[in-house]
Amino acid sequence: MVKRRSLVSDYCPSARALDAIGDWWSMLIVRDAFDGMTRFSEFQKSLGIARNILSERLRTLTARGILEAVPAASGGTRQEYRLTAKGRDLFPVMVALRQWGEQHLFAPGEPHSSLIERDSGRKVTLTVQTEDGRPIDADGAMILKVPEAEGQD
Amino acid sequence: MVKRRSLVSDYCPSARALDAIGDWWSMLIVRDAFDGMTRFSEFQKSLGIARNILSERLRTLTARGILEAVPAASGGTRQEYRLTAKGRDLFPVMVALRQWGEQHLFAPGEPHSSLIERDSGRKVTLTVQTEDGRPIDADGAMILKVPEAEGQD
Repeated sequence: MVKRRSLVSDYCPSARALDAIGDWWSMLIVRDAFDGMTRFSEFQKSLGIARNILSERLRTLTARGILEAVPAASGGTRQEYRLTAKGRDLFPVMVALRQWGEQHLFAPGEPHSSLIERDSGRKVTLTVQTEDGRPIDADGAMILKVPEAEGQD
Repeated sequence: MVKRRSLVSDYCPSARALDAIGDWWSMLIVRDAFDGMTRFSEFQKSLGIARNILSERLRTLTARGILEAVPAASGGTRQEYRLTAKGRDLFPVMVALRQWGEQHLFAPGEPHSSLIERDSGRKVTLTVQTEDGRPIDADGAMILKVPEAEGQD
């Protein structure tokens, strides 16, 4: 593993977000959880990764409050993994990744899964806008840094 | 390194997106590029990672068409790294990560950087909606899979 500088005290919310999620692959677990999977065996089948790695990822996501482990509805000792409210708030991240993938990583006409509204079948999209509702792109935006004086140096 | 199953032929656009970006840390390079950084030394100072790791990440992002290496405007042999159009389309992913970080990873009143509209100073936000413009959350959405018959098995 590459040694990582911890970003947990970084002033940048996106850096902390990346740190909290921990690994790109963990986002695939989150995706499957959004898709209704709850059981270790379901994630394992979907992701095709080794059991020990999946265990570790599930443990990390649970420790960070993105998933919670609850006793299986069917009883017994089995656990189920469910998204917490914090985990469910990753929905826009998933949608943004999906949208970018659709734009750039499929050949014209190549089939791909789609995210749709359950009731209407309409496509789900995502728009970046100002707080008063005007669309904005990267060129029109800037990062306002925390003044050094407020920091810890 | 953990052996990864390649997702390059996955039907799920978010899986391909995760595969194309390759590593969470690469998103911090993308963030810094959005913030105007172009030079190896700038990324190195910002990210505090080893030169050989940064080199490898920049090479991967360039190979995947997210960054492009161009001769430095100041001349000489130095290169600059700039976001391509494909790279700039990662803007909503950055905004979504930032928004989640702001919601869940800062104590009340704890200072953090903000993404604002350059001209007005207004905050930049992100909304998931249906294609006809109604807000939608994860509960109202579902993934429409590619029918097996269209797949390769």
